[in-house]
Amino acid sequence: MFDAVFDKNWKRTVYCGNINQSYADKPVTINGWVRKRRDLGGIIFLEIWDHTGMVQVVINPENNASVHERAKQLRSEYVVSIKGTIKRRPVGTENPSLATGNFELIAEDLLVLSPAVLPPFDPNDAGMIDENIRLKYRYLDLRREAMQGNLRLRSKAAQYTRSFFTGEGFIEVETPMLTKSTPEGARDYLVPSRLNPGKFYALPQSPQIFKQILMISGVDRYFQIARCFRDEDLRADRQPEFTQIDVEMSFLTEEDIFELVEDYMKGLFKETIGLDIQTPFPRLSYAEAMERFGSDKPDLRIPFELVDLKEVFSGKGIKAFEVGDSGAIKGFVLPGGANLSRQEVGNIEAKAKELGAKGLACFQRGEDLKGPLVKFLDEAGKELLIERSKLSQGEALFVMADTDKRKVCEVMGQLRLELAKKYDLIERDKWAFLWVVDFPLFEWSDTENRYVSVHHPFTAPKNEDLHLLESEPWKARSRAYDIVLNGNEVGGGSIRIHDPRVQESVFKVLGLNEEEALNRFGFLLTALSYGTPPHGGIALGFDRLVMLLAGAKSIRDVIAFPKTQKAQCLLSGAPSYVDEKQLDELHIKVTATEEEDEDDGLKTS
Amino acid sequence: MFDAVFDKNWKRTVYCGNINQSYADKPVTINGWVRKRRDLGGIIFLEIWDHTGMVQVVINPENNASVHERAKQLRSEYVVSIKGTIKRRPVGTENPSLATGNFELIAEDLLVLSPAVLPPFDPNDAGMIDENIRLKYRYLDLRREAMQGNLRLRSKAAQYTRSFFTGEGFIEVETPMLTKSTPEGARDYLVPSRLNPGKFYALPQSPQIFKQILMISGVDRYFQIARCFRDEDLRADRQPEFTQIDVEMSFLTEEDIFELVEDYMKGLFKETIGLDIQTPFPRLSYAEAMERFGSDKPDLRIPFELVDLKEVFSGKGIKAFEVGDSGAIKGFVLPGGANLSRQEVGNIEAKAKELGAKGLACFQRGEDLKGPLVKFLDEAGKELLIERSKLSQGEALFVMADTDKRKVCEVMGQLRLELAKKYDLIERDKWAFLWVVDFPLFEWSDTENRYVSVHHPFTAPKNEDLHLLESEPWKARSRAYDIVLNGNEVGGGSIRIHDPRVQESVFKVLGLNEEEALNRFGFLLTALSYGTPPHGGIALGFDRLVMLLAGAKSIRDVIAFPKTQKAQCLLSGAPSYVDEKQLDELHIKVTATEEEDEDDGLKTS
Repeated sequence: MFDAVFDKNWKRTVYCGNINQSYADKPVTINGWVRKRRDLGGIIFLEIWDHTGMVQVVINPENNASVHERAKQLRSEYVVSIKGTIKRRPVGTENPSLATGNFELIAEDLLVLSPAVLPPFDPNDAGMIDENIRLKYRYLDLRREAMQGNLRLRSKAAQYTRSFFTGEGFIEVETPMLTKSTPEGARDYLVPSRLNPGKFYALPQSPQIFKQILMISGVDRYFQIARCFRDEDLRADRQPEFTQIDVEMSFLTEEDIFELVEDYMKGLFKETIGLDIQTPFPRLSYAEAMERFGSDKPDLRIPFELVDLKEVFSGKGIKAFEVGDSGAIKGFVLPGGANLSRQEVGNIEAKAKELGAKGLACFQRGEDLKGPLVKFLDEAGKELLIERSKLSQGEALFVMADTDKRKVCEVMGQLRLELAKKYDLIERDKWAFLWVVDFPLFEWSDTENRYVSVHHPFTAPKNEDLHLLESEPWKARSRAYDIVLNGNEVGGGSIRIHDPRVQESVFKVLGLNEEEALNRFGFLLTALSYGTPPHGGIALGFDRLVMLLAGAKSIRDVIAFPKTQKAQCLLSGAPSYVDEKQLDELHIKVTATEEEDEDDGLKTS
Repeated sequence: MFDAVFDKNWKRTVYCGNINQSYADKPVTINGWVRKRRDLGGIIFLEIWDHTGMVQVVINPENNASVHERAKQLRSEYVVSIKGTIKRRPVGTENPSLATGNFELIAEDLLVLSPAVLPPFDPNDAGMIDENIRLKYRYLDLRREAMQGNLRLRSKAAQYTRSFFTGEGFIEVETPMLTKSTPEGARDYLVPSRLNPGKFYALPQSPQIFKQILMISGVDRYFQIARCFRDEDLRADRQPEFTQIDVEMSFLTEEDIFELVEDYMKGLFKETIGLDIQTPFPRLSYAEAMERFGSDKPDLRIPFELVDLKEVFSGKGIKAFEVGDSGAIKGFVLPGGANLSRQEVGNIEAKAKELGAKGLACFQRGEDLKGPLVKFLDEAGKELLIERSKLSQGEALFVMADTDKRKVCEVMGQLRLELAKKYDLIERDKWAFLWVVDFPLFEWSDTENRYVSVHHPFTAPKNEDLHLLESEPWKARSRAYDIVLNGNEVGGGSIRIHDPRVQESVFKVLGLNEEEALNRFGFLLTALSYGTPPHGGIALGFDRLVMLLAGAKSIRDVIAFPKTQKAQCLLSGAPSYVDEKQLDELHIKVTATEEEDEDDGLKTS
């Protein structure tokens, strides 16, 4: 049935999608997949697909009876090579929805290279198919135009990335995948060592330590598109293995990183999707980002922000608004909100409560200012409210108060996002980049009952805050920075500690004694003492960046073979049980297994 | 001591190694490491290093007493920023061994950025240092010019590689690192799954299955510089994790791969080391390579090869040369060998015996033909010997006979290598590329008591040998090819099976029943049935290629952070013991541990 051999005589002379006027009346050979077959009046029409697109093939028994006979066996997704002549389609039969729709290939010879069993879905419209089925038959899913486009965009972005950084004098260095477990940070994936019984490698959560070692090695400017691993309970749109653009440089200040990354982004958007973005990016301190947007990754495409209304409501006799010195009263103005029904306002308040608010006040400004709390304000009070909130006619103002200021910021920040989405108020044609800087160096962890690093323990304190390390570490700010795009954190980094004494002080705040610190980070601590240049860097989330460039909804759509939320690969069946012999060699044994539960593995969202 | 803060005023204006006439009498700032400090007549001379090279700094107390005072604290490997003016050195004090040796920096200001404890070795001449010490203090080792050169060459080779393949229409696709264990092939590194108790991921030995899936996905041309893992007992110069250039394409024949790789190599050698290499590369069948060189990766830089001498010695009454139909008598001519002493000849025979020969005959041709076996040959016999072996005056001919032909080829092939090295007969300025083709598809494994694939189970049989799969599988040749450079296998690949029926036949020969085959390769087998194009590819050993380009002796010298033969990283201390809690979460427990034995970890060769 398909014993014929593919040789150079059957190699394509043109990709399906590239057929145009210049091929008219010329002989060509195409190689590809049968996407559709229709038989009309004894004539067979095929749509043949390759990654460049589709072209129609016509097989008329009057031209070539034997080819027509062979073509009868063709089904969807058969692989073929077809020789023939390109013709303009007869007037009136053109297909404007197809790039090659003005042409067709009149077949003269046909080689069936491979049959196909009936596919579980048609790659033409797999967009609607359940994602688990798409992941299981990923090879069919990837035969879709959108997915081919995503893979090619990703490859293009990777090439641009490397050419940009090498152009800036960075060299690519490959760091180890089998490395040492460092319990600081997320959970490690471990790899038992056969040659060292009882010992384990860890897969890198990032090349952090190695890139710092490279700076100590005098490499000066390093980059790598690096695979990283985190064994976390997967929140939506996280992957156990992910890819980051990892960058580090020596003898630098923050400004060098900002300029470098801004130039990189400018080129990336231009090269991949032809877009001009504006640089430099705005910068916000962490404190200001929390005050104004209730988030350390604010989405600046939303045209309203949090305003402080404590002064407006103080002493007005509203009980819920008596929040004391440590509390806050914050609001934001929702465009178009004056027309919300009582029920809609109620839904919004319910949402706020779900997010943690005790209540939510609403002021609607139509002809007049309306709302349950208006009665507490005199004319001057109303004017102050309108002045501070910039509430215009047609809008609504939502206000939350709490004795916990952080909670007010976070709830109102989250509510701002929800309402912007719900009422379609995000300016979707904008690309809003932003640097967030001046993060706190430490935060208190109730679960660990100690301070933990907000970024990682190698992040340098701000020079002017060095003195706080011993006295009031919670006040110390770091030289860390995040880059945010449209409300997504797409990267982060810092200037590192290059002074071993500062590193030791930080470990002390983290509650690591010398032995523990040496045990966990010993080789970096040792290396720091042999002459360390000032250095710093950044890591950019490549999957997320490509997702945003592609306009995809999930990073799974820009990863060729992603895993589900249970960290399973539905295509390969990984992870799987292994032979006892393999475990014996690795000096380990399994202490628990799970019941086979097929359904359980199919959760992806 | 080093409280001063590095800011933009202290950033380098020139790299140390780039200082030349154009900087004369100009102010500069340099950043780098103190490599040497000498005090001569009250003046301090420093050699300051960065990855571009070294420059001399002069600190004269008469110019600037406070800088001189601060410079007194400087020791080797301190990190500094120095401002001053470049001057031509006084006549007679130039240092021709330094690229910047005509110049020096007259220091005007100095910032000590970081101190350094006394390094265990001087990066200037670490070449002689024990490799284990170099690996432990890799950051010092990497501060050597040779190692910086290797890292930079590797980065350049990687960039060229990607630009070549994308230029040829290939796209880069990242394949998973957490994948499914497939016991065929080498031993897997396993990763226990926390979310799927009792199950394991395997780190990929190569992206083989995924790159074939990508072809089934219509990707058409794929490449990736991919990290791969093999848990083998490490022979010299193997690494548990290594890097390969992974390539796959659809609708191709072998010629496409040959041409592609030849073009790639031509460009690689030109771009990285400025060398023009000749293409196309010669091709040898596996059978011919074994006959002529006793190796499937012959080093063609050695100017002598094996010759068949069975006819010369048959019926001459030499007992050891009665080898029967299945046996062989082979020899090679050693240039200059006529002058070897009896003892030297004896040493060579001893070597041959060590390699597995029962004995080795030697004929030396000075004025006359001499040797213990000459007496068995009449004049015609001597003439035939000389004619067949092309033994010239001044040379020696070594001859081995055995009833096992394969043994004769392999021992003589190995002896050829040893003697070429010993007598320095390798033409070291040559770059001898070679394709080896027509490998057998299967070989018998005594340990497994079954046929195993010479390459891997997805390798296509030659079309003309398909009929042998059922009848005489041992005779079937494959569509596999290896690329050899100077006696190193630097890559290999094949045209794959795209017909599910052929794949099933191959599994049958391998002794895998349907269930086993499905269990191991199920998802590839399934995928093959959904419309698979003819496809094939190659994987090139990137570490080895870079090693050859760099003229390095070991791949460890072109890997930033390599592991020892016991698969340990002496820098980080990986692998290491982990917390019991981590193992509990992974549903495993350790069954054996080893005694701590520091020495044991230090074996690298």
